[in-house]
Amino acid sequence: MLVGINHQIKLAARPVGLPKESDWERAETPIPSPGPGQLLTKIHYMSVDPAMRGWMNDRPSYVPPVGIGEVMRALTVGEVIESNHDGFAPGEFVAGIQGVQEYALSAGAWLMKADLSLAPAPAWLNTLGIAGLAAYCGLIEIGQPRAGETVVVSGAAGSVGAHAGQIAKIKGCRVVGIAGGAEKCAYLTDELGFDAAVDYKDQPVGAGLAKACPDGIDVFFDNVGGETLDAALMRINPFGRLALCGAISQYNVTDKPYGLRNAILLVPRRARMQGFIYFDYREKWPAMLEELAGWRADGRISVRDDIVEGGVQAFPDTLLRLFRGENLGKLMIRIAD
Amino acid sequence: MLVGINHQIKLAARPVGLPKESDWERAETPIPSPGPGQLLTKIHYMSVDPAMRGWMNDRPSYVPPVGIGEVMRALTVGEVIESNHDGFAPGEFVAGIQGVQEYALSAGAWLMKADLSLAPAPAWLNTLGIAGLAAYCGLIEIGQPRAGETVVVSGAAGSVGAHAGQIAKIKGCRVVGIAGGAEKCAYLTDELGFDAAVDYKDQPVGAGLAKACPDGIDVFFDNVGGETLDAALMRINPFGRLALCGAISQYNVTDKPYGLRNAILLVPRRARMQGFIYFDYREKWPAMLEELAGWRADGRISVRDDIVEGGVQAFPDTLLRLFRGENLGKLMIRIAD
Repeated sequence: MLVGINHQIKLAARPVGLPKESDWERAETPIPSPGPGQLLTKIHYMSVDPAMRGWMNDRPSYVPPVGIGEVMRALTVGEVIESNHDGFAPGEFVAGIQGVQEYALSAGAWLMKADLSLAPAPAWLNTLGIAGLAAYCGLIEIGQPRAGETVVVSGAAGSVGAHAGQIAKIKGCRVVGIAGGAEKCAYLTDELGFDAAVDYKDQPVGAGLAKACPDGIDVFFDNVGGETLDAALMRINPFGRLALCGAISQYNVTDKPYGLRNAILLVPRRARMQGFIYFDYREKWPAMLEELAGWRADGRISVRDDIVEGGVQAFPDTLLRLFRGENLGKLMIRIAD
Repeated sequence: MLVGINHQIKLAARPVGLPKESDWERAETPIPSPGPGQLLTKIHYMSVDPAMRGWMNDRPSYVPPVGIGEVMRALTVGEVIESNHDGFAPGEFVAGIQGVQEYALSAGAWLMKADLSLAPAPAWLNTLGIAGLAAYCGLIEIGQPRAGETVVVSGAAGSVGAHAGQIAKIKGCRVVGIAGGAEKCAYLTDELGFDAAVDYKDQPVGAGLAKACPDGIDVFFDNVGGETLDAALMRINPFGRLALCGAISQYNVTDKPYGLRNAILLVPRRARMQGFIYFDYREKWPAMLEELAGWRADGRISVRDDIVEGGVQAFPDTLLRLFRGENLGKLMIRIAD
């Protein structure tokens, strides 16, 4: 039995707009011991994702809201250090929902084995985790791109967007990314192999898309929502598909969300706009992970790890980096080694 | 060869907002003679549809805009009176796009045989025409309702909506219609067998849907758009489907169209919003028409014919009735008998 302190970040209050320090409680509790059927994980890396903002709202959604006083929900990868669970043994690595803390108890639900011989721990939050899986599910299952089509990805320098664009390239599409700033746009075209990038800080996104997509948009993979989605709708082709992964531009809006004016074009364009959550495709994950691991191994998918030091205490500030558009690649926090 | 006058309504100008008299030209031309491969039809009934407003705009869409000086596009049913076309003989009835006029020349494209032994001429513009086919395509192909689900139809007292609701009942769904006024709502529940009706003139549509759909909405068949669609999005269930047939509330808007604020819910609800045009399903029409004819014959589908007298000259005023929400059932004009 491990004796020591488990540092945790708990939700103290429901944020209005951007989360602030007083919305969090920095807690210290004893490291717990696994009961029957449970395992204890020492968390090594924690994923920082836009979806976390939604989990903090007290609204019905695809998962229950994080309760006030509860450890903040987070995707993690870590090492099993004690186990009373038949499926998991000490020394194995597991990825799944374990929260913003250093040690986590689990009954095994929402955990999968992370085989470090296949890829190092951070990759299980990146290409072999939420970023690769969300991109795969949205692009392939919803977007259904065909070779030669134009695929546009918003939030393209983020981890999900970077994967979506690269998978679209693998499928033989022309790929355009939308990102903010010259550095991110250069990352898309020079490092990730996108065909073109639209810098929304340099020009209105609609004007950028008009130039970058002379043949319109067949598939739009959206992480941003709002004005960006509206601009994509304006140029969606007949029978186009809009896969809605998220809407980071709207998560901290405190008055009314942006009103989409161009959704009316879905009718004459016979286009489809569909939301998705990658959790819904768990049965297909093993096959998806095999393909993603192959693309990672042969270098056709490469997405930077954006790893922040400082452990769980770094979480509140790190989350805000997402909403300031500061990160490039997969944002995560190193908790232990 | 027939000698006489062909009265026609041509588009004289592109309307801004609601079409007005000066947007039309009331023309008289000689009855034309069919050339090689052509047939001449005497039109008996003409369909008056919300989609006509879209055809008058100079915008790329699923069909080219009606040109200035051209006969206004319209769906019609009529009798072949002369034919140099191998596929059509005098005395046969045909349904298809023949325009707002008394006599039409055609090479046979966009025409199908209308078997009057199966149903009288007006039915080929109603249950066996645009109304039944659009409802079938949108509800079955896009909405994919399952028995026991809640299906909501907007513009439900209109011809397409009335069919969509009745087909949903045949499929074992709970069906709620949205319409304006007590008379239309009574028509839905008392005559068409809808389970409930929401009168949007009596209460905000969102409040009405909250009461009428305690278990949320699984399929939304939309003819209205704007605020009505937004209210439906608010209550769409996980994995719900929104089949967008049209947006009559927006067709005559002269400033910006309504901005949909609740489309952001498509993500957590994993819902799908998809536009469709029934023309795209032509290969499936024969099978659809067989089913629709069966349901019409056994009385499970019954939608009123709303037939206006006055011939082609009645067209400009009759079109406006659609946008004033005045009609109930399938709006058409009798041109000849």
